[in-house]
Amino acid sequence: MQQNTTPNSRPFDLLSDSVNKTVLVELKDKIQMRGTLKAFDVHMNIVLENAESMENGDPKTKYGKVILRGDNILLISP
Amino acid sequence: MQQNTTPNSRPFDLLSDSVNKTVLVELKDKIQMRGTLKAFDVHMNIVLENAESMENGDPKTKYGKVILRGDNILLISP
Amino acid sequence: MQQNTTPNSRPFDLLSDSVNKTVLVELKDKIQMRGTLKAFDVHMNIVLENAESMENGDPKTKYGKVILRGDNILLISP
Amino acid sequence: MQQNTTPNSRPFDLLSDSVNKTVLVELKDKIQMRGTLKAFDVHMNIVLENAESMENGDPKTKYGKVILRGDNILLISP
Amino acid sequence: MQQNTTPNSRPFDLLSDSVNKTVLVELKDKIQMRGTLKAFDVHMNIVLENAESMENGDPKTKYGKVILRGDNILLISP
Amino acid sequence: MQQNTTPNSRPFDLLSDSVNKTVLVELKDKIQMRGTLKAFDVHMNIVLENAESMENGDPKTKYGKVILRGDNILLISP
Amino acid sequence: MQQNTTPNSRPFDLLSDSVNKTVLVELKDKIQMRGTLKAFDVHMNIVLENAESMENGDPKTKYGKVILRGDNILLISP
Repeated sequence: MQQNTTPNSRPFDLLSDSVNKTVLVELKDKIQMRGTLKAFDVHMNIVLENAESMENGDPKTKYGKVILRGDNILLISP
Repeated sequence: MQQNTTPNSRPFDLLSDSVNKTVLVELKDKIQMRGTLKAFDVHMNIVLENAESMENGDPKTKYGKVILRGDNILLISP
Repeated sequence: MQQNTTPNSRPFDLLSDSVNKTVLVELKDKIQMRGTLKAFDVHMNIVLENAESMENGDPKTKYGKVILRGDNILLISP
Repeated sequence: MQQNTTPNSRPFDLLSDSVNKTVLVELKDKIQMRGTLKAFDVHMNIVLENAESMENGDPKTKYGKVILRGDNILLISP
Repeated sequence: MQQNTTPNSRPFDLLSDSVNKTVLVELKDKIQMRGTLKAFDVHMNIVLENAESMENGDPKTKYGKVILRGDNILLISP
Repeated sequence: MQQNTTPNSRPFDLLSDSVNKTVLVELKDKIQMRGTLKAFDVHMNIVLENAESMENGDPKTKYGKVILRGDNILLISP
Repeated sequence: MQQNTTPNSRPFDLLSDSVNKTVLVELKDKIQMRGTLKAFDVHMNIVLENAESMENGDPKTKYGKVILRGDNILLISP
C-alpha cells in the first residue's frame, strides 16, 4: 500500500475539505443537486444549503436546505 | 477533520431541528411526500403528519400520518 | 436532540399504535396493499389481515392474510 | 408496546402457522409463485412444494419444489 | 414453532439434497440457468456444471461451469 | 449436510481453480466481460487481465486490466 | 487456495498500484467517468481528479475532482 493511499481516510478527507463550498451531487434515478456542503456523516449522508436540483446543467427547482441519503448517492463533485 | 463537520451528528441534527416543521421527502420510484415531521430514528425512518403526495409541485393525495422507510429515501428538505 | 424525538423509538411507536387498525402500505414495484395491521417486527416486516391490493385508490385483489417484507416497503399510512 | 405486538416474533409466527398450507408469494420482477409451504429460515428464504408460477391469477409453469430467496420477496399470502 | 420448521436449516437442506442433480435457477434481470448443482455456500452462491441459459423454457447458450452469486438469485428449483 | 458440500468453501474454490484462466463475467445492467482471472477477494471483487466487454457473444471494447465489483456480479463462468 | 490468490488483498492492490494514473470507472445507471485516481477506501469509494464523464467513448462533461461511491461502482479499469 503506498504512502498516499491510506485506506478509509481519503474520500472523506475530500468531503471535509469541501465544507462550505459548492458541490454537485448525483443520486440514483437521475437526480442532480447543487448546493453548499454544510455537513456529512460516516454513511455519506450530506447536508446542502442553497440547494437546487439541476437538469442538463441548468438549475431547475430551489430546495433551500436538503439532506441527501448516502446510500443513494452516485457521485459528489466539489 | 474540521471543527464544523463532526461525523455522524450533523445530518441527523438537521432532522432534529426540523421536528414539527413541514418537510418535503423524495423516495425511490419518483414518490414525493410533504408533511409535518413528527419523528425519526437512526435508520432515517420518519413519521409525517398531514402528509400528502406531490406531483410536479402540486398536492395529489392526502395520507394523514405516514411512516416513510429510511432505506428508500433519496432526500429530505426542511 | 429535542424531548419529542427519541431516536429509534417513534416510527415503530406509530406502528404499535396502529395495530388492529386499517393501514395502507406502498411497496416497491408500485404495489399498494390495504388491510388491518396485525403484527410487525424490528425489520418492519408486517402482517395484514383482510388485505387487498389497490390500484389508483380502488380495491383490486383480495389476499386475506399477508406478510409484507420490510425491506421492500416504501411507506405505511395508518 | 402493546401486548399483542411482540417485536421479532409475529410475522414469522404466521409463516410457521402456514407450513403445509398453500401460499402465494410475490417476488421482485413481477414473479408470482403458488405452492405448499414446506420450510423457511430467518432470512425468509422459503421452500414450496407443488409450486407453479402464476400470471394474472392463472397458473403458468409447474416447478415442483422451489427455494425462493427471502431478500427478493415482496409478500407472502397464506 | 412446529417440529417440521427448524428455522435456518430447511431451505439449505433442500439445496444439500439437490447436489449432483439438475436445478433451474432464476436470477434478476430475467436470467434463467439450468445445470447440475455441484456446490453452494451460506450466501447461496452456487456452482452449476453443464450449465446453459434458458429462454422461454428452451436452452439458449452453453456455459459449462458457472458460479451464480446468491444475492441476485430469485429462486432455485431442483 | 453431505460430504461433498462443505458450506462456505466450494464456490470460491472454483474461483481459485480458475486463476490465470479465461472467464466470462456477467454483471447487472446487461454488462458482459471476458478476460483472464488474476485475483479475487472474499467479496467476490475480481481482477481480469486482457479484459474485453462482450455483446451477443462478440468482443466489443478492450479494457486491459479491470476490477469488477462483487456486489454487482450475476455470474462467473470459467 | 493457491499462492497467487490471497483473498482480500488483490483487487485493492490493483487499486493501490493505479494511484496517480488514469482510470475508467463505470457506475450504475450507465454512468462512465474517466480521471486520475487520487484515493480510495475499503468501501471502494474513490476520488478522481481531472474527471470527465464519458459517452460512447468520448468525453462529455468535465467535473474536476469527484468522489464516486463504492456501492454503485460496477467496474474500474486502470
